[in-house]
Amino acid sequence: MEMLSIHLDRSIDTPLYEQIYLYIKKEIINSHLSYGEKLPSKRKLSEFLEVSQNTIETAFDQLVAEGYIESKPRKGYFVLAQGDLEYIYQERQTTSAKNTSEDEIKYDFYPSRIDTEAFPFDQWRKYVKQMIDKQHHQLLLLGNAQGDVELREEIANYLYHARGIHCDRESIIVGAGVETLLQQLISLFSKQTLFGIEDPGYQLILHIVKHFGHQAFPLEMDDQGIIIEKLEKANPTLIYVTPSHHFPYGSVLSINRRNQLLQWAENKQQRYIIEDDYDSEFRYTGKTIPPLKSMDTNDRVIYLGSFSKSLIPSLRISYMILPKQLLHFFNDKLSFYHSTVSRIDQQVLALFMKNGDFEKHLNRMRKIYRRKLELVLELIKPYHPIIQLIGEQSGLHIVCEVRNGKTEQEILENAKKAKLKIYPITAYTATDWSTERPQFIIGFAGIPYKHLQHAFELFLNICLSK
Amino acid sequence: MEMLSIHLDRSIDTPLYEQIYLYIKKEIINSHLSYGEKLPSKRKLSEFLEVSQNTIETAFDQLVAEGYIESKPRKGYFVLAQGDLEYIYQERQTTSAKNTSEDEIKYDFYPSRIDTEAFPFDQWRKYVKQMIDKQHHQLLLLGNAQGDVELREEIANYLYHARGIHCDRESIIVGAGVETLLQQLISLFSKQTLFGIEDPGYQLILHIVKHFGHQAFPLEMDDQGIIIEKLEKANPTLIYVTPSHHFPYGSVLSINRRNQLLQWAENKQQRYIIEDDYDSEFRYTGKTIPPLKSMDTNDRVIYLGSFSKSLIPSLRISYMILPKQLLHFFNDKLSFYHSTVSRIDQQVLALFMKNGDFEKHLNRMRKIYRRKLELVLELIKPYHPIIQLIGEQSGLHIVCEVRNGKTEQEILENAKKAKLKIYPITAYTATDWSTERPQFIIGFAGIPYKHLQHAFELFLNICLSK
Repeated sequence: MEMLSIHLDRSIDTPLYEQIYLYIKKEIINSHLSYGEKLPSKRKLSEFLEVSQNTIETAFDQLVAEGYIESKPRKGYFVLAQGDLEYIYQERQTTSAKNTSEDEIKYDFYPSRIDTEAFPFDQWRKYVKQMIDKQHHQLLLLGNAQGDVELREEIANYLYHARGIHCDRESIIVGAGVETLLQQLISLFSKQTLFGIEDPGYQLILHIVKHFGHQAFPLEMDDQGIIIEKLEKANPTLIYVTPSHHFPYGSVLSINRRNQLLQWAENKQQRYIIEDDYDSEFRYTGKTIPPLKSMDTNDRVIYLGSFSKSLIPSLRISYMILPKQLLHFFNDKLSFYHSTVSRIDQQVLALFMKNGDFEKHLNRMRKIYRRKLELVLELIKPYHPIIQLIGEQSGLHIVCEVRNGKTEQEILENAKKAKLKIYPITAYTATDWSTERPQFIIGFAGIPYKHLQHAFELFLNICLSK
Repeated sequence: MEMLSIHLDRSIDTPLYEQIYLYIKKEIINSHLSYGEKLPSKRKLSEFLEVSQNTIETAFDQLVAEGYIESKPRKGYFVLAQGDLEYIYQERQTTSAKNTSEDEIKYDFYPSRIDTEAFPFDQWRKYVKQMIDKQHHQLLLLGNAQGDVELREEIANYLYHARGIHCDRESIIVGAGVETLLQQLISLFSKQTLFGIEDPGYQLILHIVKHFGHQAFPLEMDDQGIIIEKLEKANPTLIYVTPSHHFPYGSVLSINRRNQLLQWAENKQQRYIIEDDYDSEFRYTGKTIPPLKSMDTNDRVIYLGSFSKSLIPSLRISYMILPKQLLHFFNDKLSFYHSTVSRIDQQVLALFMKNGDFEKHLNRMRKIYRRKLELVLELIKPYHPIIQLIGEQSGLHIVCEVRNGKTEQEILENAKKAKLKIYPITAYTATDWSTERPQFIIGFAGIPYKHLQHAFELFLNICLSK
């Protein structure tokens, strides 16, 4: 072949070897150099271009590595690539951020929102600083797939003292959010497993179950909770319940029904109850309600807990307690999973719990939320019975029924005009179930106290206006 | 009913209402109070026990909330629970930590281990401190399900400059580890979708694919990479490849094969290539290899990247670029998923990248790993051709073939005796494929430089000893 007339520019930043490499690659891509063609020897090309042989060698090595040319011992370098190659290398254009409609909402009554103003940034930062330290370089490596032992130990302690649950840290799995854990859990069961899910209820679980190819049916409820006879008839393998504080109605599953549920699970092999104890930390009167798991002498309850509401939603730390049999499955079938949570975050949370800061934080938040709830109840009171409260007054939301003949649609439309985001109960059912009168789930926790009166007055206006 | 003779102890910490509550609950559990039985009125009980009516009310409220008793208007409180209730509340016993065999291993040549000694703790801590701040209280709330915009923007920039990939931040999904992302990706395809997976190769993907009910078959390879004819014949929907640095052999997919693969994907609707660019950051000579994604003009390549090897394995941050059609599916079908990564971690990483610290870290680590690799090559050199190196010398591991008649089993047994952990190539195949002579994947990155010579000499001894 002829010599390659590469124009080398010694004034630019691009190294000479790279200019040579790019030139030859382009020639191959544009079919100016074709399959099988021999390249000039390194020595000849280096003399011709007045660069060192090392420079040529680096360029050739790169082309060999990428498969554009090959080196035949004692014969030289030959073009290997063929055909019309396309290698697009345009200037990258950045897109502008999408405008979200977030700005346009004045108040969002989303039930999972928390109060972010009281978060103990200083304490948290102190522990983070402590953990990000050369001494802890082992923390950079992958840890236990179930989560770091220190965190699981603190969770077990917390569950014992706060919830009366006697569990072993070995049965706890830490994961990046309840949906990640649920998805792992669900994958342990064979396809077409039947799930019973409270209806109305938390729709997330329904989506996950269906997305992963299982079947789900709504669990019918009365004012004491799930109707056991209907449950027996439908015969699911797993049921998903929120016994301490039904989502969204806030009712507490009665002790009889609890026993009946546990009995139902024990009546057949492989029946399990998924207990989502989602905002049990926030009861404002009396003791918190003992969870099903604390009564679970036959190891049939899968307990789900999360730090999303009690600490930081965006931290993405949740956990589940698995019965022994499922734990065995988990470690066997899901051994390819690493933990889904950063180890430094796990260790920081463990320290935060160990030193009593989590308990302090919960006590503080309980006061803040109780104060908010009291204000809300006071604001609603004068409008009873037109605005009727439903369920226990605990957790981070209430349910309001509007009893003046207004329809859900009318109220939603007015809310939109007033830039309020409210959530009708019908959004939390999988069936065509609906209530006689419109009901709304009103999360009060995320709205700052100083704005709460205004926000609620707007909401009440919308419900009550002629 | 008779008056309840509750012994109240005013000297202990337990509040009086709780003592009353616990007593009544125990009486119900032990069937000393039975279904339908009427409790004494609040007034009478308060007089009898010499406590305030409020105290009795709090205790009763708690029992009502838990379903043990019920309140009938103008009639009083009645026992609601029945049957033999079991409420186990034992003293929690902590289990002792499991002894891992980690301590017994002298050197672990695991290919995914990184060097933790050079991690820039000070820089990282600086950014963490910056982000954990009252001013950023919005960061506590859930963010974008695909990951925070700031991080996705930095990843897009990085991919453009380091890998020649022109992608939009809107097409990037951030997730807690490659296995979490793969599992989400796989769930977008209908059951029984056929996956082709490089063999030998990364077995994780095979486990995930099979665990979620899909089918997988091994992709046959020659020294240029996947054999296209065999691929056409098997007709999978997705294939999983490591073109820049084949795992574990380290070879680079030739440009011809790259084009053939892209062509294969374009030949039929819904065919996709999963490109795992797993340790592309660590090439020590020349430029890095342009990935398939940079040549992907027809949007058929799903690109997987991770900060596990390039930064911190335990941080659990990975990402994928989805073709537009799959992105649409993802946002539609997986809308129930929140991001699986802590937002503070995402923001810290974004700052770390934005300020050039990631690039600096990569350059530094490249030097450290190159130095380690050079030492390893020097140590092996005298034993050529008995110890034969295979594949490109890049990344964090090498593959050694032992050509002195020793079997894999013999070498593994000797390694165990010497407390070395080494990984035979046969552990990375799904078939009964094996090599004529034993081959081992030797990760050198995780062993401190000062121990590397000793570790390698031990390994060589094991291979060479009579």
